[in-house]
Amino acid sequence: MNKIEHIGIAVKDIHASNELFSKLLNTQPYKTEEVESEGVITSFFMIGETKIELLQATKPDSAIAKFIEKKGEGIHHIAFGVDNADFEIGRLQNEGFEMIHQHAKPGADNKMIAFAHPKCTNGVLTEVCSERP
Amino acid sequence: MNKIEHIGIAVKDIHASNELFSKLLNTQPYKTEEVESEGVITSFFMIGETKIELLQATKPDSAIAKFIEKKGEGIHHIAFGVDNADFEIGRLQNEGFEMIHQHAKPGADNKMIAFAHPKCTNGVLTEVCSERP
Repeated sequence: MNKIEHIGIAVKDIHASNELFSKLLNTQPYKTEEVESEGVITSFFMIGETKIELLQATKPDSAIAKFIEKKGEGIHHIAFGVDNADFEIGRLQNEGFEMIHQHAKPGADNKMIAFAHPKCTNGVLTEVCSERP
Repeated sequence: MNKIEHIGIAVKDIHASNELFSKLLNTQPYKTEEVESEGVITSFFMIGETKIELLQATKPDSAIAKFIEKKGEGIHHIAFGVDNADFEIGRLQNEGFEMIHQHAKPGADNKMIAFAHPKCTNGVLTEVCSERP
């Protein structure tokens, strides 16, 4: 794990939250991106080497909509930047972690991503991601 | 906000979680510290410029014990590294954020710290911290 690539935060209204987090972080979002396959619209802020990614659901059955319904707005996941997400999936499986994704898949921000199951990581939804080749 | 200084994760058993996160993060904790005033024992892992701080309650009425009782293990807070925590408290209050601490107080890892109320930050418990002079 090279760095905290981003921290994902589930929000109900990305426009209101962009304004709120601009004040909180004292910087503006530098990018907005819709990931239709995941049913989310995202925006990104840069803090040091880490991105804060706000996530708003665009479909009622998306993972973010379900998360907010269950737990309310708040921190959704931590993503660790790695050299190669598929290699990291193998390392984590060898260490006994249960991966939600057996192979890295395309995510927002030109990344290949995979999630580990939070039940095996003390409740922390953990993503590994690497640059898409 | 200069960087994500650390991410705090509430755990039930810090010894078991040290082992788990050593495997997850592929690195060992570099420090353990008890903060008696907060009723917690902490351990720290370094990932890039950010620390992962595991927090186990040492008293049943500590904030971490209450958090786990209510929400289970998982991500507890994000701490942003700033030049001067007291200056940042003033900036956030001017922006309309409600601070739990009106003045920075000593925290773990030789820091001066203050928290904003999560009800004004989309449910994200937000800490600002600077080096103790």
